[in-house]
Amino acid sequence: MNLDGNTQLYAFLAHPAHHSLSPLMYNLSFRAQQLNACYLAFDVLPTDFSQAITGLRAIDFAGANFSLPFKQTVLKYLDELTPRAQRIQAVNTLRNDQGYLVGDSTDGAGLFADLQEKHQPLAGQTIMILGAGGAGRAIIAAAADCHIKRVFVAKRPNQTYADLAIWLKQLSILSPTEYCLVSYSDMTSLTAALTASSIVINATNQGMDDQQLPLPLVVLQHLRPQQFVYDLIYQPLMTPFLLYAQRVGCQFCNGTGMLLWQGALAFKFWTGQSMPIDLVRKSLSTEIRRRTK
Amino acid sequence: MNLDGNTQLYAFLAHPAHHSLSPLMYNLSFRAQQLNACYLAFDVLPTDFSQAITGLRAIDFAGANFSLPFKQTVLKYLDELTPRAQRIQAVNTLRNDQGYLVGDSTDGAGLFADLQEKHQPLAGQTIMILGAGGAGRAIIAAAADCHIKRVFVAKRPNQTYADLAIWLKQLSILSPTEYCLVSYSDMTSLTAALTASSIVINATNQGMDDQQLPLPLVVLQHLRPQQFVYDLIYQPLMTPFLLYAQRVGCQFCNGTGMLLWQGALAFKFWTGQSMPIDLVRKSLSTEIRRRTK
Repeated sequence: MNLDGNTQLYAFLAHPAHHSLSPLMYNLSFRAQQLNACYLAFDVLPTDFSQAITGLRAIDFAGANFSLPFKQTVLKYLDELTPRAQRIQAVNTLRNDQGYLVGDSTDGAGLFADLQEKHQPLAGQTIMILGAGGAGRAIIAAAADCHIKRVFVAKRPNQTYADLAIWLKQLSILSPTEYCLVSYSDMTSLTAALTASSIVINATNQGMDDQQLPLPLVVLQHLRPQQFVYDLIYQPLMTPFLLYAQRVGCQFCNGTGMLLWQGALAFKFWTGQSMPIDLVRKSLSTEIRRRTK
Repeated sequence: MNLDGNTQLYAFLAHPAHHSLSPLMYNLSFRAQQLNACYLAFDVLPTDFSQAITGLRAIDFAGANFSLPFKQTVLKYLDELTPRAQRIQAVNTLRNDQGYLVGDSTDGAGLFADLQEKHQPLAGQTIMILGAGGAGRAIIAAAADCHIKRVFVAKRPNQTYADLAIWLKQLSILSPTEYCLVSYSDMTSLTAALTASSIVINATNQGMDDQQLPLPLVVLQHLRPQQFVYDLIYQPLMTPFLLYAQRVGCQFCNGTGMLLWQGALAFKFWTGQSMPIDLVRKSLSTEIRRRTK
């Protein structure tokens, strides 16, 4: 598909932005599906965000993705939120329906779509999520949609701990899924949560730029080969957490699949069409390997 | 060149916009020169123009083209104008130098670059320009840069006639080129101007959607085979004016070459590189033929 006068623009807005793998994923998908659209990354200063989003509306952009630090900033420019975006009050995907802006959040559902593709049972399971930042909260909220029975959320006992406790209580009321907050200072509870969980998900950045594990060794030593270990990080492809899981004999995966599936869900939300998963996965893996060399 | 996180955006802003051939020209050129950039057309409502240009600045676009109705509207958003854009107080090309917006006008120079490529002598010549709208004024002003000796401008004696007379007087003072205004109601002067000119350029839209000639037959009958006839129109490829010139035995051309060369000059202004002229011309001709079938 050649770019012409009718090519539609999809934008990635973040700061920084140019490292993003999303342009690769979506442009490949547009070509494969013969859609006349292109996807570009824009590094927008937080002080310029309002002008950027207003301007994109003026040039009739087709849609956008948002990452740090705009996933919440964008809310006030939207006309509608999907229920899952409402629940976490954050948006990673926006569709422009002739000037009417609809926001969605596909991060959490993306992780569970990946686990489903990997044939991991979800309904009725107990899982543990380490960290409750933006990605963590998206996964926490999406767990209810997948009929997870119980979700343990491990969090440092800092300023936002009490707020998270309130939000988890609200989620527990709104769905059959039970949410339990566990403090990173409570080794006994962390161990109990880990032991009870069939899937353990690292949603912290521990292991991205350092050799840190997202759980203390006194807790992690209770990991068993039957458990599935998920690390949201994909650069590096292998984190200390995943190496540990590998040694224990667990099934494990990095965040590449979540990146892929959150993108596939956004692509569907925009175009109504399916992302060519295998093609994009292959291209994504090649590019991530190239970058991490 | 695949689109990725570092791909730069060039925009075409007009209303309407999606019919533009510019995306074809520039995207082909970016690919051929292996530049990581893409060019998209945006149909912007006049009421949204301010937000559009401010927003493009916020997302750090690389450059833009403007067509109707924005060539003058855009002036107040610019930090600098090239001398030739200053002279006509209109801009068809903008470069974003890290937030500093420089405007240029390549329309007039584009026409003369095309005439030069066609080996038409320019320096010391007398030429006649029919019409003094946006394109006409760009050509009028650019004539001085090509050391044209005398420029006859034919214009209907309407409200803006007196303003044009003043502007032509200013241009005459600023350069050795002599500018003479001729009224469309004065057959004798029109005939004298036509007879004196080696090149006659139609910058009106007569012959675009109708079978009109841009000069009355009583004047046009004085056309001789030695004269070169240029019609800015390129859809249709052959206008009544060009058919008339053909019958007389004149050399003639339509506006495809001007479209090409104003684009080549914009491409140079943006990237410092040369547009692959032959490649773009071929593609442009194919597309124009396809559309006019």
